[in-house]
Amino acid sequence: MSVTVLGLGSMGTALADAFLKAGHPTTVWNRSAARADAVVARGAVRAGSARDAVTASELVVICVTTYDDVHAVLDPVVGDLAGRTLVNLTSGSPEQARAGAAWAAEHGFDYLDGAIMTTPPGIGSAEFMLLYSGSPTAFAAHRATLASLGDPLDLGRDPGLASLYDAALLGLMWSALSGWLHGAALTGSEGVTAGDFTPVAIRWLTAVTGFMSTYAPQIDAGRYPGDDATLDIHLASMDHLVHASEAGGLDVGLPLLLKAFVARAVAAGHGGDSYARLIEVVRDGGRA
Amino acid sequence: MSVTVLGLGSMGTALADAFLKAGHPTTVWNRSAARADAVVARGAVRAGSARDAVTASELVVICVTTYDDVHAVLDPVVGDLAGRTLVNLTSGSPEQARAGAAWAAEHGFDYLDGAIMTTPPGIGSAEFMLLYSGSPTAFAAHRATLASLGDPLDLGRDPGLASLYDAALLGLMWSALSGWLHGAALTGSEGVTAGDFTPVAIRWLTAVTGFMSTYAPQIDAGRYPGDDATLDIHLASMDHLVHASEAGGLDVGLPLLLKAFVARAVAAGHGGDSYARLIEVVRDGGRA
Repeated sequence: MSVTVLGLGSMGTALADAFLKAGHPTTVWNRSAARADAVVARGAVRAGSARDAVTASELVVICVTTYDDVHAVLDPVVGDLAGRTLVNLTSGSPEQARAGAAWAAEHGFDYLDGAIMTTPPGIGSAEFMLLYSGSPTAFAAHRATLASLGDPLDLGRDPGLASLYDAALLGLMWSALSGWLHGAALTGSEGVTAGDFTPVAIRWLTAVTGFMSTYAPQIDAGRYPGDDATLDIHLASMDHLVHASEAGGLDVGLPLLLKAFVARAVAAGHGGDSYARLIEVVRDGGRA
Repeated sequence: MSVTVLGLGSMGTALADAFLKAGHPTTVWNRSAARADAVVARGAVRAGSARDAVTASELVVICVTTYDDVHAVLDPVVGDLAGRTLVNLTSGSPEQARAGAAWAAEHGFDYLDGAIMTTPPGIGSAEFMLLYSGSPTAFAAHRATLASLGDPLDLGRDPGLASLYDAALLGLMWSALSGWLHGAALTGSEGVTAGDFTPVAIRWLTAVTGFMSTYAPQIDAGRYPGDDATLDIHLASMDHLVHASEAGGLDVGLPLLLKAFVARAVAAGHGGDSYARLIEVVRDGGRA
């Protein structure tokens, strides 16, 4: 099945290469045409214009920097999108994705919004997820083709969900990476290499994902029994981390923030609850 | 091989039960004797005093609330520890662990400091790690017995390292759990259940551990090439998270702190570097 890829930054180029590698005739276009040279040398067809690119395939994938760029490229040729499917892998907000779906409905084309949960070198591996939300018919029709890029996950009909999950998962990544960096700096202050600390940290994170699986039903039930470890116990241990970090000359902004969340829940009388109780602190944040 | 367990809170009781289950004759003692009843009913030998407990086994394991409690229990009988091995699984600081090793050397007994990387229900499973540091001869002599509690990891001769790793790993756990809770709250603000979000989050964390493995050698080399994703790109995406969190009425303390770390590195001219560069922001924190 033929595919068009609009936008040939490092990610767009990786997408086009993955489609080519999976045997899909692939048409490419980029605002500055020279960016297409490499992927054309590897077998892609160069479109002379955005219009030629759009009309070359029923499935049109766009991956540019912002949603404004999406409109700059596609508004002039929106009539040619009618009857086709647009998969928008540009990063943006849930609101922008929903506006994109409304724009597609207005102009008679199918719309899937997507989020790519890997870096360009990971594209093409089923190990990594690409998240999609929006038109169920578009997902059903193109799932097999999109699987060339990575494991396609269908989040459902609300076109904003891929962007929302993207923000949520990136936030989890930044939190986990920052916690790991803090730990590497802390153990590093006593001469432990990151190469020695990291395998232990990764193994420990596997145990932590077990806690997440235990706590998820607590969140959905709105009850947080502290059977395994209570917030009171966590709060006491957090002082060890703050103290050891200060002793190592490290920034204590992250430990102090994590401690403040626990302290808020404990002050509200929830010291006997599990860590999952803190979701209510996060939710209350906007009102506090 | 016989073992003594001092301290029968929920963790100490789990330790005694795991030794019993592995077939080790186990002597137990707790300041309030009634806490021993259950584990004695399951086969442990009740010691009438701390002295009787210490002299019952060559390997003495203590798990109480604080290092002050360790001394309250053992200082009166420290002469009886001579020639034995004390494994101290009480939570404390690296300084306290090093002082414990010095105290052991003064009184002629072998000392291992340890950290338990699971909750009481996880004790006895090789899936979970117990970290040890201190006397290499004590670890070599008792490794097989300690394996009854979980997978024993030897961190080496510095007795402070188990406590230091413990603080570092708990910090990683709190960071990862907080990032996950934020993500659950964010997707939850649009009606996604924690039960739906969490398996995707866990799968994503596996990809994130791959980034840690990539970045660890960068930290040890002190060079942070942004081949896969630059801090400039992360900073732009962080605005999506802050915006979406505000739209959902959530506390934005965590996203703003994570963003501030990246912004500091970008302002210092490192926007083209990888996320691993932020370890230098963490290290500089004490001086800034």
